[in-house]
Amino acid sequence: MQGQESVNMADVARAAGVSVGTVSRAIAGTKGVSAATRRRITELADHLGYVVSPEASRLAGGRTGRVGLVTPYVNTWFHSNMIAGIAETLTAAGIDVLLYPIAGAGERHRFFDQLPARRKVDAVIIIAAFPVTEPEWQRLDLMGVPVVVAGLNVPGRPSVGIDDDLAARQAVNHLLLLGHERIAMITGEDPEGYQYHSNVARLRGFRATMRDHGVTVDENLIIPVPWGIPGGARGMDTLLSAPQPPTAVFTHSDEVAFGALQSLRRAGIRTPDGMSIVSIDDHPMAETADLTTVHQSVTEQAVNAGHLCLDLLHDHHVEHKQIIIPTHLIIRRTTAPTRTPGAAQPQTLLTA
Amino acid sequence: MQGQESVNMADVARAAGVSVGTVSRAIAGTKGVSAATRRRITELADHLGYVVSPEASRLAGGRTGRVGLVTPYVNTWFHSNMIAGIAETLTAAGIDVLLYPIAGAGERHRFFDQLPARRKVDAVIIIAAFPVTEPEWQRLDLMGVPVVVAGLNVPGRPSVGIDDDLAARQAVNHLLLLGHERIAMITGEDPEGYQYHSNVARLRGFRATMRDHGVTVDENLIIPVPWGIPGGARGMDTLLSAPQPPTAVFTHSDEVAFGALQSLRRAGIRTPDGMSIVSIDDHPMAETADLTTVHQSVTEQAVNAGHLCLDLLHDHHVEHKQIIIPTHLIIRRTTAPTRTPGAAQPQTLLTA
Repeated sequence: MQGQESVNMADVARAAGVSVGTVSRAIAGTKGVSAATRRRITELADHLGYVVSPEASRLAGGRTGRVGLVTPYVNTWFHSNMIAGIAETLTAAGIDVLLYPIAGAGERHRFFDQLPARRKVDAVIIIAAFPVTEPEWQRLDLMGVPVVVAGLNVPGRPSVGIDDDLAARQAVNHLLLLGHERIAMITGEDPEGYQYHSNVARLRGFRATMRDHGVTVDENLIIPVPWGIPGGARGMDTLLSAPQPPTAVFTHSDEVAFGALQSLRRAGIRTPDGMSIVSIDDHPMAETADLTTVHQSVTEQAVNAGHLCLDLLHDHHVEHKQIIIPTHLIIRRTTAPTRTPGAAQPQTLLTA
Repeated sequence: MQGQESVNMADVARAAGVSVGTVSRAIAGTKGVSAATRRRITELADHLGYVVSPEASRLAGGRTGRVGLVTPYVNTWFHSNMIAGIAETLTAAGIDVLLYPIAGAGERHRFFDQLPARRKVDAVIIIAAFPVTEPEWQRLDLMGVPVVVAGLNVPGRPSVGIDDDLAARQAVNHLLLLGHERIAMITGEDPEGYQYHSNVARLRGFRATMRDHGVTVDENLIIPVPWGIPGGARGMDTLLSAPQPPTAVFTHSDEVAFGALQSLRRAGIRTPDGMSIVSIDDHPMAETADLTTVHQSVTEQAVNAGHLCLDLLHDHHVEHKQIIIPTHLIIRRTTAPTRTPGAAQPQTLLTA
């Protein structure tokens, strides 16, 4: 296992008693080679000290062996789990991952303008809920490689995401079944001002569920805040200063909910007695905070996006495949029935 | 701004009235070009639609234009912020980042055995507190490129980290000054069984500070748990079931502290009245949880590691440079003076 540079693919093929093509496919993780054969060949290649030459590999296959992973954030729960799942899936298949963080409008503009990944990658995965505009799609298509969207379903594009509208319905339905009617929503706006699909769809799901139950939405109880913990705290502060606060709040995401819980704690209001909170995500801290939330598996979205990308690289005809990963409610301790179902009790609430 | 392939570096040089070398250095972000000139040239290159050709760039500079970023985890707070800061720093300098996630002992072994980054990168950054063994260092050195360690100071290696021993002293000193003597430590062990330097150094700092204050460490109050929220909860459960629980606990990191706080909440014990908790990190949820903790800037470590790597790529003689990023205590609401300084009060504690 010395990684001698003198060992080439033909040496491995000879030792394994297979064609060079089979060795190439086995090492690249391409389909058409059985798992057993792949294992035997890669072990033999390891043993002989064969090291893949990126140049030779590209010349042979006309490919770079790399996928570009474009993401507006790297360090949030959602994005870091997306990057982890995608990178692990691609790396396991022998594909290298080029990471393109495009934080902020300036970086984003530069990315689409200059296409730094051009001619360096065989495919691109964009981590959403990134709202890609039509001119940006045109720029991406200029690269002439498959583009997969992870974390958002885009009609006509290979993409993997949850049904945000449905996830919101699962959350709001839970509050309505508990007897709440005076329900607020703290929405999560992008700090850069982009219209994120998840935000639009979750608000739509909230309105639709309320309407289906014959409950009127009080527009004063829809509070847009920048997504994140401080935004959530500010949103709850606003709701608590309303003449008639809600008895329950649906928050855009768990981080917004954590901020809202912080605001409630400072106000001396306990959940669920003084206020019910339900959210979407199931962030690892949600269990710690005993937060009722709609679970979405980011890892499942990531792994599916990785496999969709691998399929496209291997020319399996999946150009327009859209994969929806199911979500489900997890009931913990931030939601409870209204004390007098159907009636808001701001006095009780504020002294709880 | 059409990214026409016909525009080459010479065209940009001619339009800018500078040498091709200056254009190359400006676009690569190499030192020796003023910020103003760099901005003027990159803007002109954008305007002309110049797209860097990776092949040409490599042939010209003998370099791949890529750095390998190796990390055992992608989605923890520490690692995701490291990846973000390093990737943004390198990307801004025109360097592409190849991400190598090596989760688990199998992936790790395969990485060092096969060196998949070999001949594909100009340098490697390893995100610690990854304990690289001597045989692994020998494998890495086989690649013949600079290796930077981010998040851990390694003697004789270019590396950036905090002083873990000092950070522990800052935390434990705070508890001692509040009058606590019966102080526990919940340490954070690696689930894969590796000896992480941070864990060893923080325990050493704990013992040294206690000794300096003439306070005896009760070995039964040193609880090793796998780092993370569930481990922290289990550690506090263990401490609460001791015949004489501590009055204060120093936890390895904020995620361990979050688990410990969860255990306390379930037991009906409030902080800081029933128990003081201090930690290390200043995770974004620490403020939400009102956790007293020693702040470490992961972003500062990441940006410094990125710049150290760029310096090495540009042959600035910094081979053995070690950078220590300072830490400092942030006092929030999980620590308070003992009620009767110096005396443990398990009864009071358990009924608080």
